[in-house]
Amino acid sequence: MQVLKNILIVGGTHGNELTGVKLIEKWEKRSEKIRDLCPSAQVKLLLANPKAVLLGRRYKDRDLNRSFSEDSLASAESLYETQRAQEINTLYGEKGEKTKTDFIFDIHNTESNMGFCLILSARDPFAMRASAELTHEFPKTRIYFQPEPRAASPYLGTIAKADICLETGPQSHGTIQAEIFETTEKILRRYLELAELWNQGTLQSMPLRKVDVYTQFRDVDFIRDAAGSIRTMIHPALQNRDFEELRPGMPLFRTFDGEDIPYEGAQSVFPIFINEAAYYEKGIAMSLTLKTEELW
Amino acid sequence: MQVLKNILIVGGTHGNELTGVKLIEKWEKRSEKIRDLCPSAQVKLLLANPKAVLLGRRYKDRDLNRSFSEDSLASAESLYETQRAQEINTLYGEKGEKTKTDFIFDIHNTESNMGFCLILSARDPFAMRASAELTHEFPKTRIYFQPEPRAASPYLGTIAKADICLETGPQSHGTIQAEIFETTEKILRRYLELAELWNQGTLQSMPLRKVDVYTQFRDVDFIRDAAGSIRTMIHPALQNRDFEELRPGMPLFRTFDGEDIPYEGAQSVFPIFINEAAYYEKGIAMSLTLKTEELW
Repeated sequence: MQVLKNILIVGGTHGNELTGVKLIEKWEKRSEKIRDLCPSAQVKLLLANPKAVLLGRRYKDRDLNRSFSEDSLASAESLYETQRAQEINTLYGEKGEKTKTDFIFDIHNTESNMGFCLILSARDPFAMRASAELTHEFPKTRIYFQPEPRAASPYLGTIAKADICLETGPQSHGTIQAEIFETTEKILRRYLELAELWNQGTLQSMPLRKVDVYTQFRDVDFIRDAAGSIRTMIHPALQNRDFEELRPGMPLFRTFDGEDIPYEGAQSVFPIFINEAAYYEKGIAMSLTLKTEELW
Repeated sequence: MQVLKNILIVGGTHGNELTGVKLIEKWEKRSEKIRDLCPSAQVKLLLANPKAVLLGRRYKDRDLNRSFSEDSLASAESLYETQRAQEINTLYGEKGEKTKTDFIFDIHNTESNMGFCLILSARDPFAMRASAELTHEFPKTRIYFQPEPRAASPYLGTIAKADICLETGPQSHGTIQAEIFETTEKILRRYLELAELWNQGTLQSMPLRKVDVYTQFRDVDFIRDAAGSIRTMIHPALQNRDFEELRPGMPLFRTFDGEDIPYEGAQSVFPIFINEAAYYEKGIAMSLTLKTEELW
């Protein structure tokens, strides 16, 4: 059994996602309240992108949460986030087997109707067990499995041995909602309690839980013109329907002239990150997932 | 009776408010479809802030929709939006009695739960009559009366003799929602039909309508620390409750430690623009209005 000796909780990886920013600010004032939940581990706090927080923007020069691939960490590029990622990697990594950090919780917000989405980048035993418990304790929590080749992955969490990315929403970037703030805090606190149970060997002996696992399938972009301008919108019947079934033939997009465009895949999928503003520039109108029931 | 000879429809005054951007783009391709709705007037279309549209941001250097006061229009400042405002004023103004434009419709989005909000900056007879009709024809339309001293007012609409600003939401900035797009288009088309009826003298003889008028009362900021950082959030019972009654003693804010802060005004108010991201920098957590029933 692998004990979690070093845990890092991260907020403000994107400067305009205020739930994490405000949670880190709050906890830094009285960090013993957080540390007491998991006394068997070193629990550290990190505001990842302070310059973007000051600007009130997702990032200054480039997306920090796309700057942690091994290539980017070795890059001589002078962009702020490239440098900041390397600094964070030196402090809390370095990325790879010998990293100083066993587990990262990275707190994000989305404008999509994702509820409290627990993103696993690997089938890590603690991440699976703890997340399975949480989906039975908190409404609107869901598990998204987005397997990442760790060395090439650009995400901050991948500098630790394992990680959970919390995506909570819908919340417009640059704003904060009390209900999302308070529930995210409860979920994080519960994760730390479960980490303590894990380190004591208790969590491992609790009965497994049935969970719905939404696994990354593929991203879908808007239909665009030659200049890259969008020519379709999310179909109104699909807006806000994250994690709901989309069957072949159901409406996917609508054009500005009112024409409906159906989903033409061969099988049912479960779209998430529907109409997230930050993904327009990444060419993603939504991510499609496949749903399975598993025992975790 | 004053005939509306020149009408200007504006989108993209804020570059990340996509409903207006996409409506102007759509109509520019087949402008006769719009012009045919009000053949007695010259109907023009304007994408107000193309640089901000390209950047996908509210503005480049400063808020264009705060750049139309007489002082700002006379300023020698080299900021992009200051210059662009002066250019727009030359083309479609100039602001004052002799302006070339009788009426402006300016299309905006908000992240607040405002539905389809019709903002009048003056008690203009056509704006009142037409908006009163619209509130009876379209659900979720509401009238907000925000009286502006025309010369000092910084809003784009004030370079015309009269104007309506459409604020539609909730829609996250940088995204577009099909339902909001389609309803905004219907409302604009109907306004043009009503302008035609006005120019024919028909609208004036139709029976007056009872309307709820929400009149600007005062803005409320978050409680902040000395550095300007917010120390409160919108109370969860108030989030998304735009245009609903807030009575003295009802919860207004919640701190990050879970303490509730009540509204301590002397009278009932009706908050709008609750938790709009673009207003954090302007020191506005919401705008309070007073509600009256009037015959328009």
